[in-house]
Amino acid sequence: MTLIALLAGDGIGPEVVAEARRVLDATGLTLAYEEAPVGGAAYRAAGHPLPPETLALAARADAILFGAVGDPAYDSLERALRPEQAILGLRKALGLFANLRPATLFAGLEDASPLRPDIARRIDLVILRELTGDVYFGEKAQHRTTDGRREGYDIMSYAEDEVRRIATVGFEMAKRRERKLCSVDKANVLETSQLWRDVVIELSADYPEVALTHMYVDNAAMQMVRNPGQFDVIVTGNLFGDILSDQASMCAGSIGMLPSASLRTWSGDTGLYEPIHGSAPDIAGQGKANPCAAILSAAMMLRHSLGQEAAAARIEAAVAAAIAGGARTPDLGGSLATAAMGDAVLAALESG
Amino acid sequence: MTLIALLAGDGIGPEVVAEARRVLDATGLTLAYEEAPVGGAAYRAAGHPLPPETLALAARADAILFGAVGDPAYDSLERALRPEQAILGLRKALGLFANLRPATLFAGLEDASPLRPDIARRIDLVILRELTGDVYFGEKAQHRTTDGRREGYDIMSYAEDEVRRIATVGFEMAKRRERKLCSVDKANVLETSQLWRDVVIELSADYPEVALTHMYVDNAAMQMVRNPGQFDVIVTGNLFGDILSDQASMCAGSIGMLPSASLRTWSGDTGLYEPIHGSAPDIAGQGKANPCAAILSAAMMLRHSLGQEAAAARIEAAVAAAIAGGARTPDLGGSLATAAMGDAVLAALESG
Ligand SMILES: CC(C)[C@H](C(=O)O)[C@@H](O)C(=O)O
Ligand SMILES: CC(C)[C@H](C(=O)O)[C@@H](O)C(=O)O
Repeated sequence: MTLIALLAGDGIGPEVVAEARRVLDATGLTLAYEEAPVGGAAYRAAGHPLPPETLALAARADAILFGAVGDPAYDSLERALRPEQAILGLRKALGLFANLRPATLFAGLEDASPLRPDIARRIDLVILRELTGDVYFGEKAQHRTTDGRREGYDIMSYAEDEVRRIATVGFEMAKRRERKLCSVDKANVLETSQLWRDVVIELSADYPEVALTHMYVDNAAMQMVRNPGQFDVIVTGNLFGDILSDQASMCAGSIGMLPSASLRTWSGDTGLYEPIHGSAPDIAGQGKANPCAAILSAAMMLRHSLGQEAAAARIEAAVAAAIAGGARTPDLGGSLATAAMGDAVLAALESG
Repeated sequence: MTLIALLAGDGIGPEVVAEARRVLDATGLTLAYEEAPVGGAAYRAAGHPLPPETLALAARADAILFGAVGDPAYDSLERALRPEQAILGLRKALGLFANLRPATLFAGLEDASPLRPDIARRIDLVILRELTGDVYFGEKAQHRTTDGRREGYDIMSYAEDEVRRIATVGFEMAKRRERKLCSVDKANVLETSQLWRDVVIELSADYPEVALTHMYVDNAAMQMVRNPGQFDVIVTGNLFGDILSDQASMCAGSIGMLPSASLRTWSGDTGLYEPIHGSAPDIAGQGKANPCAAILSAAMMLRHSLGQEAAAARIEAAVAAAIAGGARTPDLGGSLATAAMGDAVLAALESG
């Protein structure tokens, strides 16, 4: 039987994951769930943000539905014990190198974007972020120089096979979309980026149908504001992807609406699915969180890990219908509680 | 006599620097100018983007007025010979560690921003970017792993004194503005950032009047779109500053309007002044470029390197008046040629 690891985590994580589970149950699929603590909640319970039992569950599950981690109470712990390390540890341990973050504007939410409506309306892109390499996982330390000054360093690195496998996902995705792939790097400064660009160019010979462009990350950050409608699929490294994907989500104005998938194979393999928003400690426990991003993450899970494309599409259509029907949590300018938003999606699912 | 090194560079660089010089001349100050080739132009003339004579001139000048470098004809040269290396070489050789990039919306240009007018109207910030450290200048190379794969790496690093000197500039600037300093890092992942944050916090004890906040770079990239009006002074490292400052300029909608200064001392020392826009090869030689960013860079030069605050303020007021009076180059939706825009600023200067 299909096993879903439910790692709800901190803050609003448990609230939104609960709604995603209700929606999954309503699809009629037979799924087994197992819960485990992660993040600050796990540190509190077990002294570590990613306890071995949690990691073991994640490794044996068919898919992981993740809420959010982060708790200001633990911000001054040494880094290895902070809640956020749980998500980094899961990505690395499970080899989830491909992070997909779609950014789209939902019909009815045109006004949520800080961009002018004529610009915002055209956003429909996916950022594909490499997730297990780069300066995130290179050697890093602080030490003293010979004259006693503190110095910190982090090694940024990529090997050609790491670049090739993420770029391959990028070309494959672009092939299924508008056939435009933009590779973002800083090859005018970084050797890592020069290798990145070289490998992407080599690989492009296998994808003559995809129009490949290259953009420096500073220019990409400008273009994402100026005209995000120009992008179809963006492929980039871990650090640049972290920055650009958050920026893109905000441009779409839908921080509470957008899901993500972290994969090691395009489909049929274990993946981790999480809303792009964080644990939002300021509104935790108040029933104010928007569960749509978690619900849409569950849909991505059905598609990429569980081979249930039809059910995934039904959920996505239900969320779109609920929004089109005027259902709004506070982040969208409405007043529905988390569970009431879940209800709206469930109602749309049943009538859909 | 005060010596200005004019390094006009590539593309529209010479066109905009020429207008800045006309405006400087009109201030009545006695300045001597010396020109030298830089970037692609220098590679063409002398086989190197930063010839020793150019560097020597820059080092001996009281200030450097820089146009732009970058020429697609040289994009496939080995990196050390590409035009962009000239600007990196100048920054490092002259120790210009503090890059100031103000982002403001000019009255009359509210519609140029891609942000909604109510959000764009509130932008008035300065990004202070560290300019001689970080992953830009650490050891970097490509090599083969033992099993023959290519691998690239770049070492990101900061020492405490490098952080302290840029943060000091940040606190001093904030003191003279709205007394809000936001330090941007990625301390949840990077040791470099952890040291950065620790040093900034230590230093903050000397500036009780400044409200210090910390933001992760991914969140900063979101906030810059959501509500840039929240920022006063942002201080950050070389790489994050590269990305965020371009993003901020675009949010202000004034890529053709914004100047920058690269300093090693807050005032009275050699600095390099350049528009934030690039060489724009697509419109080079057509008289379409907006000279305002270069003109405003010349004003910053008068202020920071030459102790001529009054003349600096006069130039800034003249640019604002020209814009308020409706003068518009094509990038601003108008049809004035580069020299005609220069004329408009000169006219405002004389009547001001
Ligand atoms: C929490 C943090 C370590 C993480 C990252 O930087 O990857 C987060 O920002 C994300 O994008 O998932
Ligand atoms: C040309 C390039 C090396 C440079 C940089 O990254 O610093 C540019 O983007 C800038 O911001 O001045």
